[in-house]
Amino acid sequence: MKVSIVGGSGYAGGESLRLLLGHPKVTLGQVTSESNAGKYVHSVHPNLRKRTDLKFVSALDLEPCEVLFVALPHGSSMKRMPEFLSVAERVIDLGADFRLRDPADYPKWYGAPHARPDLLGQAVYGIPELHREAIKSARIITGAGCNATTTILGLLPLFKHGLADPSRVVVEVKVGSSEAGAKASDSSHHPERSHAVRSFQPTMHRHTAEVMQELTFGGQTPKVYFSATAVELVRGILATCHVFLKDNLAEKDIWRVYRQEYGQEPFLRIVKDRTGIYRYPEPKILAGSNFCDVGFERDEGSDRLVVMAALDNLMKGAAGNGVQAMNVACGFEETLGLEFLGLHPI
Amino acid sequence: MKVSIVGGSGYAGGESLRLLLGHPKVTLGQVTSESNAGKYVHSVHPNLRKRTDLKFVSALDLEPCEVLFVALPHGSSMKRMPEFLSVAERVIDLGADFRLRDPADYPKWYGAPHARPDLLGQAVYGIPELHREAIKSARIITGAGCNATTTILGLLPLFKHGLADPSRVVVEVKVGSSEAGAKASDSSHHPERSHAVRSFQPTMHRHTAEVMQELTFGGQTPKVYFSATAVELVRGILATCHVFLKDNLAEKDIWRVYRQEYGQEPFLRIVKDRTGIYRYPEPKILAGSNFCDVGFERDEGSDRLVVMAALDNLMKGAAGNGVQAMNVACGFEETLGLEFLGLHPI
Amino acid sequence: MKVSIVGGSGYAGGESLRLLLGHPKVTLGQVTSESNAGKYVHSVHPNLRKRTDLKFVSALDLEPCEVLFVALPHGSSMKRMPEFLSVAERVIDLGADFRLRDPADYPKWYGAPHARPDLLGQAVYGIPELHREAIKSARIITGAGCNATTTILGLLPLFKHGLADPSRVVVEVKVGSSEAGAKASDSSHHPERSHAVRSFQPTMHRHTAEVMQELTFGGQTPKVYFSATAVELVRGILATCHVFLKDNLAEKDIWRVYRQEYGQEPFLRIVKDRTGIYRYPEPKILAGSNFCDVGFERDEGSDRLVVMAALDNLMKGAAGNGVQAMNVACGFEETLGLEFLGLHPI
Amino acid sequence: MKVSIVGGSGYAGGESLRLLLGHPKVTLGQVTSESNAGKYVHSVHPNLRKRTDLKFVSALDLEPCEVLFVALPHGSSMKRMPEFLSVAERVIDLGADFRLRDPADYPKWYGAPHARPDLLGQAVYGIPELHREAIKSARIITGAGCNATTTILGLLPLFKHGLADPSRVVVEVKVGSSEAGAKASDSSHHPERSHAVRSFQPTMHRHTAEVMQELTFGGQTPKVYFSATAVELVRGILATCHVFLKDNLAEKDIWRVYRQEYGQEPFLRIVKDRTGIYRYPEPKILAGSNFCDVGFERDEGSDRLVVMAALDNLMKGAAGNGVQAMNVACGFEETLGLEFLGLHPI
Repeated sequence: MKVSIVGGSGYAGGESLRLLLGHPKVTLGQVTSESNAGKYVHSVHPNLRKRTDLKFVSALDLEPCEVLFVALPHGSSMKRMPEFLSVAERVIDLGADFRLRDPADYPKWYGAPHARPDLLGQAVYGIPELHREAIKSARIITGAGCNATTTILGLLPLFKHGLADPSRVVVEVKVGSSEAGAKASDSSHHPERSHAVRSFQPTMHRHTAEVMQELTFGGQTPKVYFSATAVELVRGILATCHVFLKDNLAEKDIWRVYRQEYGQEPFLRIVKDRTGIYRYPEPKILAGSNFCDVGFERDEGSDRLVVMAALDNLMKGAAGNGVQAMNVACGFEETLGLEFLGLHPI
Repeated sequence: MKVSIVGGSGYAGGESLRLLLGHPKVTLGQVTSESNAGKYVHSVHPNLRKRTDLKFVSALDLEPCEVLFVALPHGSSMKRMPEFLSVAERVIDLGADFRLRDPADYPKWYGAPHARPDLLGQAVYGIPELHREAIKSARIITGAGCNATTTILGLLPLFKHGLADPSRVVVEVKVGSSEAGAKASDSSHHPERSHAVRSFQPTMHRHTAEVMQELTFGGQTPKVYFSATAVELVRGILATCHVFLKDNLAEKDIWRVYRQEYGQEPFLRIVKDRTGIYRYPEPKILAGSNFCDVGFERDEGSDRLVVMAALDNLMKGAAGNGVQAMNVACGFEETLGLEFLGLHPI
Repeated sequence: MKVSIVGGSGYAGGESLRLLLGHPKVTLGQVTSESNAGKYVHSVHPNLRKRTDLKFVSALDLEPCEVLFVALPHGSSMKRMPEFLSVAERVIDLGADFRLRDPADYPKWYGAPHARPDLLGQAVYGIPELHREAIKSARIITGAGCNATTTILGLLPLFKHGLADPSRVVVEVKVGSSEAGAKASDSSHHPERSHAVRSFQPTMHRHTAEVMQELTFGGQTPKVYFSATAVELVRGILATCHVFLKDNLAEKDIWRVYRQEYGQEPFLRIVKDRTGIYRYPEPKILAGSNFCDVGFERDEGSDRLVVMAALDNLMKGAAGNGVQAMNVACGFEETLGLEFLGLHPI
Repeated sequence: MKVSIVGGSGYAGGESLRLLLGHPKVTLGQVTSESNAGKYVHSVHPNLRKRTDLKFVSALDLEPCEVLFVALPHGSSMKRMPEFLSVAERVIDLGADFRLRDPADYPKWYGAPHARPDLLGQAVYGIPELHREAIKSARIITGAGCNATTTILGLLPLFKHGLADPSRVVVEVKVGSSEAGAKASDSSHHPERSHAVRSFQPTMHRHTAEVMQELTFGGQTPKVYFSATAVELVRGILATCHVFLKDNLAEKDIWRVYRQEYGQEPFLRIVKDRTGIYRYPEPKILAGSNFCDVGFERDEGSDRLVVMAALDNLMKGAAGNGVQAMNVACGFEETLGLEFLGLHPI
């Protein structure tokens, strides 16, 4: 199956490229980059040296393919989607342009109306654990925000089962530096970014909209109070979620619900040990893997439950999730090309 | 003035030693360490090389002094306090043994009753910004928990002025590795600790008790939901506090209250810029300084206020605060020996 | 093919376990650990969670297998090798006990005579790029020192072709923290190890012996001046080698020799670009991969050549090289189970 | 005494500013920055918040002062030096423009002839440990290259006393990220720079010229083979120097020579312990201090001596050394304003 990538010089595009090169059912078609057209892909992604002699091409030269991965900055793919749909049978858009179903949400969270609201109906929010069936027949499969994915997968069982008070959910995500993309900036300059513990979006984080959309069950949308802090790490997110339980549930009840929802999911692991260094979910050991690890701890002195979820923002938070969605859509084994377990130590 | 240190081989003791060596009013007396007695202090604290030829002594050989700094593990100083009081006019106890005023809190948060509840009344919770007057006449000045100090200084103006809903305060602190002390362990082993974003106390953190004690105003004790995450950093804490405002206050109103409380404080800085990398408080640039930086952001879409506070856990969170309290108690300039501004970059 | 591991709780043993779990020709037999017998392997290696339910067993319960990986501290396997050979057809010993061919080298570099010099003749120094044929028929395949492997692969073409002055070779290796093993120590304690640039073996590094042994050609053994510095990194080694050329060779001549030796090697990449961040070999992007990247720069003002070589000390420097050797010995495709390309960024 | 700074928005300029603010004999005059003129200095150097309300001015508005610190990119100060000399009694130029005494060295190492060779004679290479007397009467005091300073101070006693073979000195410096300056670039982008162990100048490093100039004794210039590697650290340099001794000197002989040269120097510490984590010089604990730590180890099996030297590139490698030189030139206590001991841990 021929798969191409639009926007292959960024981190999510490069990670898609690495995964697709190793996917047994995929023949890699083209990889586009306007600024690097004509250069070897390994000149930008040095891990691919000696593995491929592919060169970047301009998106103007895009040829037909079966699946097209799109990894462009926000605002680009909404305009070019018709073009992409004319080239590919399915589009997997890792960007933010088609994630929100309600057109009214775009001006609110992204500052401008959607360029093609008519296409929103063709898009499926592409987390297989949420929308596996819909993904199979969708033409546009959206990636999900990496922070949103972490939070949603952490909290889904609670809201799906109506266990949590929807009026106050406080979420603090800690994120690594690759989340801000491949472009250098003053705040990513190593002497300034090294060992930073830096609030960068204490309020009004855009991913809040996705979280609230996907955690809406029975018509009830939880109020999510979101904050984001950048920490010293390259790949990885830890979401710490403070939820207040409706009833006085014990840990074993909550455990049962998570087991029910996630026990059969190949990429979701419930992490809840009594001892050991890694007894809660932790992004460090997930680099390169497609796992989302989820755990929780019951606050004995109150009705609070602290839910922790961790993943690699470029894998389950972007490219890995995209490949998983492609596997679902194309009828492949869901884990194909995503078998890497992560490293210990790293 | 002669000052000695009990427990000088750990991080808080070593930092006290460094500060007192540079203090113009202090003559350093003795520094005790049972395991290192007879060794040069610079064999343990290599930054002191060529600065002092002092050697550790056993606490059995402790001589009279005017001020005694105590930096011992929890549970040690409560038993030995009478001995310390017989040797020194004032004791500055950086440990946890005298921080809580209510004896009933010790079994609850520390798992065992207090050994000398009769002495609790002589102790003052030693944050000068809170108890400056009481410190002047106290014989026991307690250090404050580093996470507690960060949180209390972040939230104090709000609760003192009755602006925040006391029923739900969610606090997530991100802490560096020196907080866990100088003793190596499996979880501090570099391959396991490097780039960690690790939940280590999602609920029931002991410092919760101090925070609730010190933020009690008008008889009202706020309910604080505390969580702690270890991040890649050696020195430093960032507390992110989610509070819900009683009234629909604007940022400028909140700003005014913080200015009123902290404008004249030498070690408190209100950090609230519109632009720049360091527009919110950040521990990275505070290493070695005694500042506590405090900032906040009003959530436009709700009644939430996100308060951020940062400090160096070994300075304003331990030894620096102790020296500041000593300065207050002894009638010195409050900033004496604490002028270091921190480094940029670091 | 059934493969077992002795000493599976350390880093090299754990990495062997991860690789063998993913190897299509291997059925994992037993994994031993005396201190963890009875525990799940994922309690020690959390990346293996949900992938295997295997538990550690005691080495006393070792059953027959076709290949046995041994990852024990120095001095252990030399005594137990007869036992291992009675259990397995082939032993791949990642430790140091059988690397040196001359029994006289053991007292000199390891401080004690070899316990079983009679078995040294059955051992092959297990770097396939050096001894591919001999590995095929060997019963004992030794791992190679990680620093030694890096240095040898960096310098081999020069000494094999007699291009370098053997009288003065200065090598400085920079190594990550996982090289020191899984056991916590004062020097690995995060506050002390973080951001360290620490000389730990300025002279008399044991791996010197291996380097000199393997770079001996035509009876001439180069004099290698070795130093090692620990740097902030978990996995990875960079060896910077200063060699002095016999003749006034141009870069293109040297390039030709490296191409001739390494052009067909699946795990050796010659890295030598004019521009770009990654224009020289660098361990950062090799984590988890089995590549050894080699490059060089001709000093225009002298006869010096600076050779740089990089690898992941747990992969090409230990477990990955062991699996590669197993593939060679067993007639499998040499890259089987070792296809992971490394991550960018990481 | 009034002191001003030209180029105050970079790292060396900012560090000069911090030090001069705390210097008891200095009144800070102006701090220039063309791009930041009109902004508070603490908007660029956040550690200075609440300490000063000074704003950057344009260099066009420079007023007379007694000492002028210049921290400009290479090539700028050579042209503007006459202007600086007309404004200030003494100029301390932290840049590279006046470090080399021979005009012929500029085209060779910096690619262009010197703009004002007539002024070179007025400049003194400003390391007080080397040229204390000459600094007292100089109008231009140059800073020294940070890598050069480390190497020179490491090797000086050996070459001054004629102990080392001048024909082959191999030096490998490991440097932190602040050395490359305050401007963001692709190679300083955190995801690419974090945990890097990156060769960036394997040969032809410009500081070689300074090292060779300053280690020339008795007309004999040593041949220095220099390489530089970037490692994960913000501030700090470790130079590992491999020298070959002329005679078979024992460690105690070498020790005696270093003691003789450095025993009375306030900022030079000989670090040579038998045990302990910090038994060799290490930059980690020097951040913010003006120390240069020097140590060595005799290679028992050869005539090699490995010399290690470490410092903070922004302190003893730039601004701290400049303040020390100012103290010498102005007749102040040499350590004034430079008393900070560095932090442990950090």
